[in-house]
Amino acid sequence: MIEKLALIGIGLIGSSIALRARERGLAKTIAIATRRPETLAEAQALGLGDQYTLDAAEAVRDADIVILCTPVGSYGSIAKEIAGALKPGAILSDVGSVKAHVHKVVGPLVPKGVHFIPGHPMAGTEHSGPSAGFAELFDNRWCILTPEPDQPLEAVETMKAFWRALGSDVELMDADHHDLVVAITSHVPHLIAYNIVGTADDLESVTKSEVIKFSAGGFRDFTRIAASDPVMWRDVFLTNRSAVLEMLGRFLEDLSTLQRAVRVGDGPALESLFTRTRAIRRSIIEAGQETAAPDFGRPHGADTKTEA
Amino acid sequence: MIEKLALIGIGLIGSSIALRARERGLAKTIAIATRRPETLAEAQALGLGDQYTLDAAEAVRDADIVILCTPVGSYGSIAKEIAGALKPGAILSDVGSVKAHVHKVVGPLVPKGVHFIPGHPMAGTEHSGPSAGFAELFDNRWCILTPEPDQPLEAVETMKAFWRALGSDVELMDADHHDLVVAITSHVPHLIAYNIVGTADDLESVTKSEVIKFSAGGFRDFTRIAASDPVMWRDVFLTNRSAVLEMLGRFLEDLSTLQRAVRVGDGPALESLFTRTRAIRRSIIEAGQETAAPDFGRPHGADTKTEA
Ligand SMILES: NC(=O)c1ccc[n+]([C@@H]2O[C@H](COP(=O)([O-])OP(=O)(O)OC[C@H]3O[C@@H](n4cnc5c(N)ncnc54)[C@H](OP(=O)(O)O)[C@@H]3O)[C@@H](O)[C@H]2O)c1
Ligand SMILES: NC(=O)c1ccc[n+]([C@@H]2O[C@H](COP(=O)([O-])OP(=O)(O)OC[C@H]3O[C@@H](n4cnc5c(N)ncnc54)[C@H](OP(=O)(O)O)[C@@H]3O)[C@@H](O)[C@H]2O)c1
Repeated sequence: MIEKLALIGIGLIGSSIALRARERGLAKTIAIATRRPETLAEAQALGLGDQYTLDAAEAVRDADIVILCTPVGSYGSIAKEIAGALKPGAILSDVGSVKAHVHKVVGPLVPKGVHFIPGHPMAGTEHSGPSAGFAELFDNRWCILTPEPDQPLEAVETMKAFWRALGSDVELMDADHHDLVVAITSHVPHLIAYNIVGTADDLESVTKSEVIKFSAGGFRDFTRIAASDPVMWRDVFLTNRSAVLEMLGRFLEDLSTLQRAVRVGDGPALESLFTRTRAIRRSIIEAGQETAAPDFGRPHGADTKTEA
Repeated sequence: MIEKLALIGIGLIGSSIALRARERGLAKTIAIATRRPETLAEAQALGLGDQYTLDAAEAVRDADIVILCTPVGSYGSIAKEIAGALKPGAILSDVGSVKAHVHKVVGPLVPKGVHFIPGHPMAGTEHSGPSAGFAELFDNRWCILTPEPDQPLEAVETMKAFWRALGSDVELMDADHHDLVVAITSHVPHLIAYNIVGTADDLESVTKSEVIKFSAGGFRDFTRIAASDPVMWRDVFLTNRSAVLEMLGRFLEDLSTLQRAVRVGDGPALESLFTRTRAIRRSIIEAGQETAAPDFGRPHGADTKTEA
């Protein structure tokens, strides 16, 4: 158990960390800082921590582990605010969805004697804010840590143990490679989901009411990730530009080929792609990263309307 | 209650119709025909019907309602096989995911005195075969019927009542318009899901094992529909080509704009699209077409691994 954990930002990810850390007794004191008084009041009402403040520097004072849990675009100014208050020997970490940018922006502001161990839990939902969190969010998911090689092994081990205690498996990775991996497993999927929902919203030949009524044929799946927080995702695309553009380029090349197969009516090419893609889902299910239940286990039947 | 219902094809959709029709007593006799003996034996073991045969013509003899439940590409040859055996006054219907093509291919083969009322239930899962079906599949979903205007009102009303009894809401639509609607709500979503899963599978810079481990960031959502039946989806793209290419064209235009916004770092444009797309999901949830539970209600926590 550490003496003090400070969470800067207390939305979906921050509150999930707080709940599990409390449940498992990972810190004697949990200090919570956020920007808006409403959010702080909500966190306090939920009993997520022991200390609540609008002053990030106050929250990090004496903390052994400090975790930034705000959108990546806010890291620079927060790092400036807290740098002077970090205690020697403390670990500064984060949960941001991009990593090279975080090293570049926060790295130079980290005081000597503070260990900078950036991280990214590959877990989330489309909901935001302190009440969206739950203790099980990280169970069986992966958390990627991207410390520079000059960081002390002990600090890295502390963060590994911390994420394992939260329920995650942990992997170490170079920040640039992390950004490529998430570009294909998370960022480009979000981009194309946002895009197709936008396209459907703009059509004149098909009405919005038709899109909504008949969405169960596949479209609604995309609306889940396209309902994710706009500011968080704006920051992701502003800060992981080159990896996203590279992976999007690959996606578009492949889509041209597929478009052509549809145009010329190349049945064997279509069937062969559609057969190959099934195997990946099976592997994801076997790896414990997805449910085997049909339709994600969505409710069917009479209770659907009530539930929605 | 009708005397005899004939289902030609007994996969996910056919078996779901059979189960609900039995449960609600919609037909005195349910006749089932399919192509392969194994599938017929599976249907029989599940007790889905009253008569089982490999001869579609035999199944439709004396049937009041005949529903084609096979991939759309097989309709032409099946229609030829059964045309002579359809009884005068019978209704011939189907569940195929495209409609203009079905009118074109099957329409001319329908004998005088048989009423042709094509249909498409907007409901499904990624699983296939007789054991994938369940009686609740159509509850609160929409079924679109696309009869030609010259069909007798009574036959249309019979099929409307039939689908309502299965649990669906029913909408009448022109076949060409149907094909445009499903191109954006179902076919293009499937195409881009298949495509991104293919892209991820082909990368060298990111390994397949990384794609699988870190898929919970969004990618795994796409693998569900990209695990759908390859033959069914091959046939969809071969038979709804022009509507799919038109909607794909719109998607690609919009994606170019979005790609440019990422490239130039246009934060306000990104945030504004990402804000707009949230509203559509809310409407879909309000319309009872989607669960409000975070992450589709996927299991989280300790049971995830077991369930998978
Ligand atoms: N959501 C996911 O699925 C997911 C998954 C993995 C990693 N992440 C990463 O986790 C981080 C937080 O995401 P989240 O989903 O927890 O977000 P969230 O639920 O929207 O919460 C964001 C938190 O950050 C604060 N905040 C927002 N803008 C700020 C600013 N400019 N300055 C200071 N504080 C600010 C908010 O405070 P106020 O309400 O007080 O303004 C709130 O406490 C992001 O970096 C994201 O990339 C998210
Ligand atoms: N799956 C969905 O989400 C969904 C939703 C709405 C509409 N639909 C439409 O419903 C229809 C059936 O889909 P499904 O998901 O139920 O498929 P499925 O589970 O794969 O079952 C297909 C059935 O059709 C038979 N079949 C396949 N190829 C055939 C051929 N060439 N000749 C004769 N019979 C053949 C199969 O018989 P054997 O096993 O004996 O070969 C099986 O009984 C398709 O037209 C599809 O477009 C599907």
